Amino acid sequence: MSQISESHLNRFEELRNEIEQSLEELIASRIHSGEVVELAGKMLLAGGKRLRPIMMFLAYELAGGKNPQELMALAMGFEFLHTATLVHDDINDQATHRRGVPTIHTDYGLAKAIIAGDWLFVQGYALGGRYDQEIVTIIGNYCSEIAVSEFSQIDHVNNLRTTPEDYLSIVRGKTAGPFSGGCHAAAVIAGACEEDKLALSNFGMEIGIAYQLVDDLLDLKGDESIGKPRGSDVYEGKMTLPLIHSLTLLHGENRERLAEIISNFNYDLFDELIELLEKSDSFTYTEILIQNHFDRAIKSLERFSDTDVRKHLFALSEYITKRKM
Amino acid sequence: MSQISESHLNRFEELRNEIEQSLEELIASRIHSGEVVELAGKMLLAGGKRLRPIMMFLAYELAGGKNPQELMALAMGFEFLHTATLVHDDINDQATHRRGVPTIHTDYGLAKAIIAGDWLFVQGYALGGRYDQEIVTIIGNYCSEIAVSEFSQIDHVNNLRTTPEDYLSIVRGKTAGPFSGGCHAAAVIAGACEEDKLALSNFGMEIGIAYQLVDDLLDLKGDESIGKPRGSDVYEGKMTLPLIHSLTLLHGENRERLAEIISNFNYDLFDELIELLEKSDSFTYTEILIQNHFDRAIKSLERFSDTDVRKHLFALSEYITKRKM
Repeated sequence: MSQISESHLNRFEELRNEIEQSLEELIASRIHSGEVVELAGKMLLAGGKRLRPIMMFLAYELAGGKNPQELMALAMGFEFLHTATLVHDDINDQATHRRGVPTIHTDYGLAKAIIAGDWLFVQGYALGGRYDQEIVTIIGNYCSEIAVSEFSQIDHVNNLRTTPEDYLSIVRGKTAGPFSGGCHAAAVIAGACEEDKLALSNFGMEIGIAYQLVDDLLDLKGDESIGKPRGSDVYEGKMTLPLIHSLTLLHGENRERLAEIISNFNYDLFDELIELLEKSDSFTYTEILIQNHFDRAIKSLERFSDTDVRKHLFALSEYITKRKM
Repeated sequence: MSQISESHLNRFEELRNEIEQSLEELIASRIHSGEVVELAGKMLLAGGKRLRPIMMFLAYELAGGKNPQELMALAMGFEFLHTATLVHDDINDQATHRRGVPTIHTDYGLAKAIIAGDWLFVQGYALGGRYDQEIVTIIGNYCSEIAVSEFSQIDHVNNLRTTPEDYLSIVRGKTAGPFSGGCHAAAVIAGACEEDKLALSNFGMEIGIAYQLVDDLLDLKGDESIGKPRGSDVYEGKMTLPLIHSLTLLHGENRERLAEIISNFNYDLFDELIELLEKSDSFTYTEILIQNHFDRAIKSLERFSDTDVRKHLFALSEYITKRKM
């Protein structure tokens, strides 16, 4: 993949600024309600990459939408819902930091964190509820699937028999579903035909899967200067794809040792873990999978004519799969 | 207040059965999604009194609605949202049982309880999202207020300087808002005029406040055979109205002792607490307040003609304020 050009990055930044400004205005208009808005707002505005809403604006335009302002409430709704799931996830993962700021439960306790998450959910649904039934159904479905997949993820913690199929099913529901739902909903708002909606929904799903696979790699090979220690997924017992692949491929002593390390992980075992994963070529395998899902995503865009916005969406896909954090 | 007649109770039971059946059907249609639906569904179907949806159907009919089936999804939505808040509340209150069954976090841990609550929220919003913007706004507003009030309630735990105004503000947001929102939304669906919507919204608010005051009394004087130990609000540090009233009225040694008991409550102090509350006539005061809010609720119904359904709504209000659990 080539370097992402300045013109694309500028377009992303432009969209990001518009989204950021709208989010800030919405929080400001609610801040009189007190601390719940303050805490939830701080997390919402703590500098997320806004990949989902940026993607939604590009999908909207690609699908023929002419009035991006009609999408803003929905794009914000997706970002509220995303942040809500992060706040509740961070409780369950006992994460101390998110987007560089302390998590709500760390600083203000469990009760306020749960409620702040609920407040973010309410806002997200209320924003989505401004639209037609078709949109409400998309949101209801992907949010239900998030919950279903999170249950499955919990049940697979430290489960060495997790299959690639289990993994993919969780990733589709938890990570890729919101990308897919966002692109799908944007196409609906744009008034797209069924085939275009489906193509954009598939695009979002494939890019979402790639996104998670990149996340899995970053947990093991990422730059620690971003503030998240390497191996934290392993520490939390999350069965990421490189682990699943390696467990399938290794045998004998190596397989036994890997199982032992995963089951009783601590950071002193990190280097040994990496060695084993390299023995089974699990990083390479994951990179190939990322490329496959990237390719499928791009293939979904082929039915649209080769305009600037399609190039932007292509570049955003590259940006997501090449990201270092 | 007189005994509630058989004909009213039959009508409530009839509505309750219809609601129950619809809820059961909805859960059954989702059960293939797995454990999250199973756990959330068990809590939803654990025999709640369904006061809010019953009230909504009566308010709908009173407001001139002719096709109750158009209300069912919304009534269910309110019950889903109500159960969602209970699941999350029970985590925060560390409650072990609800509606006679163990709470989700007790049996399945914190993470699954948070997510099961989130799943219930999603379903509630999705059901509400089937309706017009006016309904979505009502739901968004009352659910936001629940979160705001829960924050305030947490901040007032064991706060001996909680005023009746603080109390009322929390109760309006957390308990009465959903009743008010339910009646308001039902009137909207029925196609009521603005004045009728307002009257029913006020009715719900006043009955909701009375409901909470009755709850406060039951915590101190209720029948323990229902499975909830008396004094659990005090144990959790919740500043209920009888406590607030007594703290305001007592002075000298009695006030000091009361403050001590509330701050360091254990069940051995229960009888002494009751004695002090009786000294300040705080139970009588609470009963008078209940009657006042009941009267105001009933006054809101006066603008409607004196039909069977108005009598049912009157009887439901009596039922709520005279309930023993």
